[in-house]
Amino acid sequence: MARPGDRSKRPPTMTDVARMVGVSQTTVSFVLNNVAGSNISEETRERVLEAVKKLSYRPNAAAKVLRTSKSHTIGFITDDIATTPFAGNIIKGAQDMAWSNDKLLMIINTSNNPEIAEAAIEMMLERQVEAIMYATWRHMIVEPPPNLYEVPAVLLDCFCADRSLPSVVPDEVGGGRTATEVLLREGHRRVGYITLAYRPEMQAFVRLEGYKTALASYGIPFDPALVRTGTSTAVGGYSETLELMKLPDPPTAIFCANDRTAMGAYDALKELGLSIPRDVAVIGFDNQEIISAFLRPGLSTLALSHYQMGQWAVEYLLSHRGTQEISEPPEQKTIECPVVMRESV
Amino acid sequence: MARPGDRSKRPPTMTDVARMVGVSQTTVSFVLNNVAGSNISEETRERVLEAVKKLSYRPNAAAKVLRTSKSHTIGFITDDIATTPFAGNIIKGAQDMAWSNDKLLMIINTSNNPEIAEAAIEMMLERQVEAIMYATWRHMIVEPPPNLYEVPAVLLDCFCADRSLPSVVPDEVGGGRTATEVLLREGHRRVGYITLAYRPEMQAFVRLEGYKTALASYGIPFDPALVRTGTSTAVGGYSETLELMKLPDPPTAIFCANDRTAMGAYDALKELGLSIPRDVAVIGFDNQEIISAFLRPGLSTLALSHYQMGQWAVEYLLSHRGTQEISEPPEQKTIECPVVMRESV
Repeated sequence: MARPGDRSKRPPTMTDVARMVGVSQTTVSFVLNNVAGSNISEETRERVLEAVKKLSYRPNAAAKVLRTSKSHTIGFITDDIATTPFAGNIIKGAQDMAWSNDKLLMIINTSNNPEIAEAAIEMMLERQVEAIMYATWRHMIVEPPPNLYEVPAVLLDCFCADRSLPSVVPDEVGGGRTATEVLLREGHRRVGYITLAYRPEMQAFVRLEGYKTALASYGIPFDPALVRTGTSTAVGGYSETLELMKLPDPPTAIFCANDRTAMGAYDALKELGLSIPRDVAVIGFDNQEIISAFLRPGLSTLALSHYQMGQWAVEYLLSHRGTQEISEPPEQKTIECPVVMRESV
Repeated sequence: MARPGDRSKRPPTMTDVARMVGVSQTTVSFVLNNVAGSNISEETRERVLEAVKKLSYRPNAAAKVLRTSKSHTIGFITDDIATTPFAGNIIKGAQDMAWSNDKLLMIINTSNNPEIAEAAIEMMLERQVEAIMYATWRHMIVEPPPNLYEVPAVLLDCFCADRSLPSVVPDEVGGGRTATEVLLREGHRRVGYITLAYRPEMQAFVRLEGYKTALASYGIPFDPALVRTGTSTAVGGYSETLELMKLPDPPTAIFCANDRTAMGAYDALKELGLSIPRDVAVIGFDNQEIISAFLRPGLSTLALSHYQMGQWAVEYLLSHRGTQEISEPPEQKTIECPVVMRESV
């Protein structure tokens, strides 16, 4: 094994291997590439492989890639998943599925810089990745970098407005409905909802729609006073819960559009001397375990299925890599958000 | 711009570019590589570049790499930073520093699988990354994969026992001392400490050592009853705080060895009807902002300087890439853990 001191030496070449064994370079090449019908004796083959090992000879990767068109690598471009604590399981799901298919996942985190995204895709194309995944840290609409269209690609936790690329996203509306129904099934009829501040174009995809659908299916009129807009963080969860509890007819249950909001709701309810879930039930969303599993009582919440999105995308890419064209129209997959019951409902 | 439908076509070659412009392949090559003194007219140069753009011609990356020995890429191998919510800022710091030096950071997350780590390094070596960073999600001793020694490399948030590679780690002992001194300076003399369960070989590097040093510097005898071992999570923080508060002479301040532990300590103190910091002051460690910034009151804590470690490592690699050998002995850098004051002390 080469150690630091060896670094000044040039890397060994195929000629070095041939010289060590006393055979031609062609023979070495045939052995390394498993060329059928090359009539090389088992003994020679073994001696070549031994020399390869002894010299730490590494075939030129790019040449190999060009020849076989297989880099055994899938590119993964993300705005900020690798650096933020929100959606790491997308990477985990993709990583595990890729590795179990003998592929490496090459990740580039762009810090939401379009220049980096384009350079990253370019670099990946040059290195002939077999496909590229493009993932965001939260569900959003994206404009894919133009060069993403030059390779089989799939969008994760995001989609493009013209649906020109396949995508996988969580079923937000279904999740919002499920969360609300969990509370309604327990008999709650005054259900508060602390929503996130969404951009207008995402309105149709938000959990609030599911909340409304669930109420309607139970014949409960929608009361706008029960809906407050939070901040995505505990700060808004705290202040908006205080506001909800000031209502003349306050809620007996609160659906918080994310777990961080629920963290603040817990503080507000506890300060008011209210018990969770006896006085007020709480359900979150996201199952951000570092919070949800460790609040007291444990927070019942909905999982975003990040791991499954990562898995699905790799499976999709591997099953489509043989085809030259993406199926038309490109698949737009939604993944269910399952309930994770703990003790807050 | 090539669209999905174009995928079935072979990629354009330099010959295609030459044919479109009506010049030789050598001329195209000279233009693309900015060869000085090649006597190519500005007009021809422009026509070549236009054709390159029109055809979406991409020079063979590997050939380019071999010629210039510059892939403009730095490899980043990690056990699980990309998928866990603990140390993402190491990637952020490295990413920002790399990009500001025109380098891409190619990340592989190994899920702590040594096979993936070795394959990842191999793939990076084949693609001639300029250097490799090897990072762990928490401070630990590692056995670097043997092939990591074949390229300039640096360890982040970890180190190897024989110190044969440069490393950058947080100054845990100094941080433990600082955290304790913050409490002592406020007049506290009974300071509880909820530690993490460390592996024996890490004992010399832990925050507990700093806690002891700080007490000694204030002439306060070390009282083992004030030290409890938590679980790294809120669960241990909760139960061990209850234990500490049962002492005949309970602490007036608690140093929690991480913010998750402090999250549980808050719950215990609030349940006991105690006010933070009036009755009991709390200081955390890690500045895991999703928790520390949103607890009520905001948690005073120490930052792990993940961002700075990432930055430092890239700077170190870039400033050493010209040298063939790592300086002997390889630099073992520690980075200070600064106090982040909020409202809990």
